[in-house]
Amino acid sequence: MFDITLLGTGGMMPLPYRYLTSLIARYNGSGILIDCGEATQCALKKKGISPKSIDAILFTHYHADHISGLPGMMLSMANSERKEPVLLAGPRGLERIARSLLVIAAGLPFDIVFREYGDREEGFDVGSMHVKAFRVNHNVVCYGYSISVSRAGRFNADEARRLDIPLKMWSLLQKGETCTDPEGRVFTPDMVMGEERRGLKITYTTDTRPTDSIAANAKDSDIFICEGMYGDPADRDKAIEKKHMMFDEAADLAKRANVSELWLTHYSPSLTDPRQFLPLARSIFPGTHASKDGRSKELKYEEQE
Amino acid sequence: MFDITLLGTGGMMPLPYRYLTSLIARYNGSGILIDCGEATQCALKKKGISPKSIDAILFTHYHADHISGLPGMMLSMANSERKEPVLLAGPRGLERIARSLLVIAAGLPFDIVFREYGDREEGFDVGSMHVKAFRVNHNVVCYGYSISVSRAGRFNADEARRLDIPLKMWSLLQKGETCTDPEGRVFTPDMVMGEERRGLKITYTTDTRPTDSIAANAKDSDIFICEGMYGDPADRDKAIEKKHMMFDEAADLAKRANVSELWLTHYSPSLTDPRQFLPLARSIFPGTHASKDGRSKELKYEEQE
Repeated sequence: MFDITLLGTGGMMPLPYRYLTSLIARYNGSGILIDCGEATQCALKKKGISPKSIDAILFTHYHADHISGLPGMMLSMANSERKEPVLLAGPRGLERIARSLLVIAAGLPFDIVFREYGDREEGFDVGSMHVKAFRVNHNVVCYGYSISVSRAGRFNADEARRLDIPLKMWSLLQKGETCTDPEGRVFTPDMVMGEERRGLKITYTTDTRPTDSIAANAKDSDIFICEGMYGDPADRDKAIEKKHMMFDEAADLAKRANVSELWLTHYSPSLTDPRQFLPLARSIFPGTHASKDGRSKELKYEEQE
Repeated sequence: MFDITLLGTGGMMPLPYRYLTSLIARYNGSGILIDCGEATQCALKKKGISPKSIDAILFTHYHADHISGLPGMMLSMANSERKEPVLLAGPRGLERIARSLLVIAAGLPFDIVFREYGDREEGFDVGSMHVKAFRVNHNVVCYGYSISVSRAGRFNADEARRLDIPLKMWSLLQKGETCTDPEGRVFTPDMVMGEERRGLKITYTTDTRPTDSIAANAKDSDIFICEGMYGDPADRDKAIEKKHMMFDEAADLAKRANVSELWLTHYSPSLTDPRQFLPLARSIFPGTHASKDGRSKELKYEEQE
């Protein structure tokens, strides 16, 4: 299934009791890590997740707290005997910055594929997961991400019987394959599959002011992971000046985007007890959670009607 | 006073329960950090030590587990409002590697001074601490360090009275200053100070096979911090192949060097319970400790006779 783990919830610098903000999403044997600050590899180990499973690391931007853990992570991936290529994707400048950091990680036993975004929005697949990268509004170029998995339509067994499709082809058609029987009859998935059903979707944004693009891209997400750098209304001017977000602003985005859950993260080091600022956010969006490091969830398809 | 803290005890990669090996030594308001792997800044915060106090970072070598935390540490030093220059010292290649890593730490509010070692041994001062860097034997160029503080001789008050030295000059002479009284008489410290007494000394080596240079440089150290990558005799071949050290080899060096205490560190991630291999090491050198993260000690001058 599709599961996500918020490895850390800190912003700016790692703390002894709070790892830097980073998310791992896993589906069908593929893994996507979003952001990789200092000690993210420790947070991953703490959750018992092997770095070997990471097929792609997506970066929101290149402030140190989002990328400083890259060399250590790549070395741990090498040490876990990963051989398959790893995709590194992010805003322009990624290859230059990553190669600069990897000066201490020579001889990796896998290839690195770089993808730098050329325009404001970009979509690509990692395994069976679809990634959409979209611009947000920070003091440097910064992106948010939606990761979604699709769900095929319902299989119409009655129709498959009516068409006399051999039983052994049923599962192939369900997987989207076209089949030909010994008599030369061709069966295509659309003959027996209903319309694509609602899949699963998560959206992740940190280091940004609220924007319409976030509300639009997070639309109907099952989980919206969003920065809440500050909770105290007294910090609003600081949030605006540093282009970060308040708890209540994240809650407002969650409401506008009609998401199922909001997970706050990327707390300022000065924010020692995020829960104390939950009431205001929950008054705006009741499904707001002040995440702790390691918060995870296995997402399930909605019940069949 | 002179205090040291072993911030972490891990080798190779940081673990959720074990920081990477790194030592901070502090004396008279100056701080020296030896090695700075990923998350060393967390270990420092955990001990309540401000990164602002670090005047020099000394590197043994440039494997990632000894330098990957540099950008984050420098950013935290900047954030602690340090303005004074910081010395980075280590084997050849330091400036190139450090500048490469610091691609994500632009605009630091202090100058960086680089010192790359040109030959096998090198001595220099950081504040009132004297550093000696000496070559050890790893699979890349690697250095060990001794840090020592000196202790002036005893002040001879009887002699000062006999010479009729004004009282207000006594403390200046004790600090090593030359004084001239209103009548033009010149007093020098050697007139009233006894011979320099035994000071304090610590020695730090990781990532090396045992060498005569370690035994010689660690001679009479109050504390000898030495890698014990493996404890199990079954790992001896691996230790030799990877140019690391066994517990019992470290203990043998401690004995040869006549140190007061041996602190083992830089454990392999596979070594989950270092204490189980202590008996053999203690049979060779009874003052052996299987350090845990954060082990610290305030070193005191030996009692006056």
